[in-house]
Amino acid sequence: MPTKPWDRLWTGVNLATMTDASLGVIRQGAIAASGGRIAWLGREADLPATHTRMARDVVACGGAWLTPGLIDCHTHIVFGGDRTADFRRRLHGESYADIARSGGGIMSTVRATRAATNEDLTARAVARGRELCSWGVTTIEVKSGYGLDLPTELRMLEVAAGLSSQLPADIAPTLLAAHTLPPEYAGRRQDYVGLVVDRILPAALEQGHATAIDVFCEDIAFTPAESRRILEAGIGAGLHGRLHADQLTDLDGGALAAAVGARSADHLEYLSRRGVDAMAGADVCAVLLPGAAYTLGADRRPPVPALRRGGVTMAIATDANPGSSPITHVGAVMNLACILFGLTPEESLLGVTAAAAKVLALDHDRGTLRPGMRADFALWDVRDVVELCYWVGASPLRSLVKDANPVP
Amino acid sequence: MPTKPWDRLWTGVNLATMTDASLGVIRQGAIAASGGRIAWLGREADLPATHTRMARDVVACGGAWLTPGLIDCHTHIVFGGDRTADFRRRLHGESYADIARSGGGIMSTVRATRAATNEDLTARAVARGRELCSWGVTTIEVKSGYGLDLPTELRMLEVAAGLSSQLPADIAPTLLAAHTLPPEYAGRRQDYVGLVVDRILPAALEQGHATAIDVFCEDIAFTPAESRRILEAGIGAGLHGRLHADQLTDLDGGALAAAVGARSADHLEYLSRRGVDAMAGADVCAVLLPGAAYTLGADRRPPVPALRRGGVTMAIATDANPGSSPITHVGAVMNLACILFGLTPEESLLGVTAAAAKVLALDHDRGTLRPGMRADFALWDVRDVVELCYWVGASPLRSLVKDANPVP
Repeated sequence: MPTKPWDRLWTGVNLATMTDASLGVIRQGAIAASGGRIAWLGREADLPATHTRMARDVVACGGAWLTPGLIDCHTHIVFGGDRTADFRRRLHGESYADIARSGGGIMSTVRATRAATNEDLTARAVARGRELCSWGVTTIEVKSGYGLDLPTELRMLEVAAGLSSQLPADIAPTLLAAHTLPPEYAGRRQDYVGLVVDRILPAALEQGHATAIDVFCEDIAFTPAESRRILEAGIGAGLHGRLHADQLTDLDGGALAAAVGARSADHLEYLSRRGVDAMAGADVCAVLLPGAAYTLGADRRPPVPALRRGGVTMAIATDANPGSSPITHVGAVMNLACILFGLTPEESLLGVTAAAAKVLALDHDRGTLRPGMRADFALWDVRDVVELCYWVGASPLRSLVKDANPVP
Repeated sequence: MPTKPWDRLWTGVNLATMTDASLGVIRQGAIAASGGRIAWLGREADLPATHTRMARDVVACGGAWLTPGLIDCHTHIVFGGDRTADFRRRLHGESYADIARSGGGIMSTVRATRAATNEDLTARAVARGRELCSWGVTTIEVKSGYGLDLPTELRMLEVAAGLSSQLPADIAPTLLAAHTLPPEYAGRRQDYVGLVVDRILPAALEQGHATAIDVFCEDIAFTPAESRRILEAGIGAGLHGRLHADQLTDLDGGALAAAVGARSADHLEYLSRRGVDAMAGADVCAVLLPGAAYTLGADRRPPVPALRRGGVTMAIATDANPGSSPITHVGAVMNLACILFGLTPEESLLGVTAAAAKVLALDHDRGTLRPGMRADFALWDVRDVVELCYWVGASPLRSLVKDANPVP
């Protein structure tokens, strides 16, 4: 029985609690919050008899579904410029290499990001963040990585952190200075790795926004040895570790993530059996990014059955970025996870809630509906919560609740 | 020079006229309407000097893009029930056959449609139609085919036709009584074909809503001979012919569509070289449905390069339906056409405008911006019209214009 009055009580809801690695459905349920946290949840019929007196505000929801606020645990929504022209050129048959050589590709985004003001970066990231929130998202991880120099990487983290004041979402900024080698360091790879480890990382720690460090470990980016050096420095300094791993080739990235104690390895189209075992053994989460596999026309899929058998936590995320995953439609990403990667709808929904919370080391605080967890909710106009993965259309979000307060 | 006053003039627009099988871009343009039709369009600098006096209403658009209202030329948005449970079961590994045997599949939609009232069918189709209109769609083709009996097929056509009173869109209803063989005719195929030709078709003609007839020609549906009989009856009675052709197997459906003088053959994953030639020779449009190929995990793609070389008009459509293409997000379908089928963004945009108008035999009236064409416009908040195919997110539609009137 609750000991203090509830601030708010939602009745007439079907709850998808996302507990015990399942949807954890409670039909005809109710949920109450106190002090911004869940105070009680269960079947409406089991509400304490005194509940109407106890709740300051009662919201009758008429059969809507209620899930934890969704969590997008891998995005690049802060960037300058756009890549519409690249998209068009690629579909007219030009190769990535040709596009990059003539001014397109990731370096065009780096140039545009360096040239943009914080205000411009913020305004455009807020627009992208609003789209995520229209899909029930209340927590967004945002990576740097289009600066590739000290001042712009710090500016990206500052812009990312500032988004929370303009969105109904908390932001988890990640330092991804090791996204690609900037051309001014061509032939001087170790100098750039040194810059990241010895200058950008300390400055980011001093700045205080970043909660994680990430590296793109790939033939076209950083070697496993370089990735290890950067990750170990960041993790040693108290950041959570992330790794873009085994996306385009098998560099044993999953095992590297496990060896350094990273929280996640992301992408994983080329993850080996050995990598699965290493991740399972070290409890490293897999972050699956079907939007990128789709957009790039990848010919490989992450080894979902092996990850499932190994008990590896599988999160999914939009990977929203202008080049390889220009997607802010969370429903489409959940659908892609099912259709392209063979996740079940339950795995897809867990992938943007409980599993994503674990990736961000926030599973003690959000991602499931349990007493004591943050009262971040998404209310949905659907007859079955599986519809969120099934129909690709407008968002069926009815309303959003952040810290127990309705979002206007 | 115009001879009568313009009812309305839009200035400060970038026009994508979709003429001459191209985007037909006019930057810094203006467009005027009179009597619900386009009276003038061109560069704003070339506006007749008297234009401000001549237009009763001037809408300054501040750099928005303006396209013809989009046309979704292949949908099944009228249906009862839903297939969320099928989707879930399939992703848990059950086969289509098992799902169908235990009450799922298309026949579950037929049962739900037969059982639904017209009001219920209408309410739910209006919701789906609104999603299409939120993507700039002002003309929607809607097929019957979940009735498979005389009264329900006619009810579906009636519901479809009635949608235009509740949506900012014109509706083109299509009789698809030959969607699948209803189980009550198992072993009596010719009796059902006879019912379609001798009873349902005449009743639909009498009813007067259907503008086209369609058949699903496939191993699991109707044979080429049965399809021909039905199409010839419908076309002979003055309807436009459509054909679900060569989606799952090569039954020479493209050539059949050409032989009977159909306006389109749709799907076409297994279209042969011979079929391409036949379609090119008879000016049959190809309607590509990437949402279905994606959802079904099709291992074949329509022969886009051959269709392109043959000069076959390529339309694209959502194929919105509860089983094989649960998609009302037109942007995602345009993106899928590019990513999955290799269309250029220009082909993708033409596919939902000029080409789709030709499929519906409405190309004299809509689908391009030219003097005399219907003033159905979509205004977009994008910097480049190609963005509509590129970023998969919320609709960038700013506003819709139907028959020269702003849609509230």
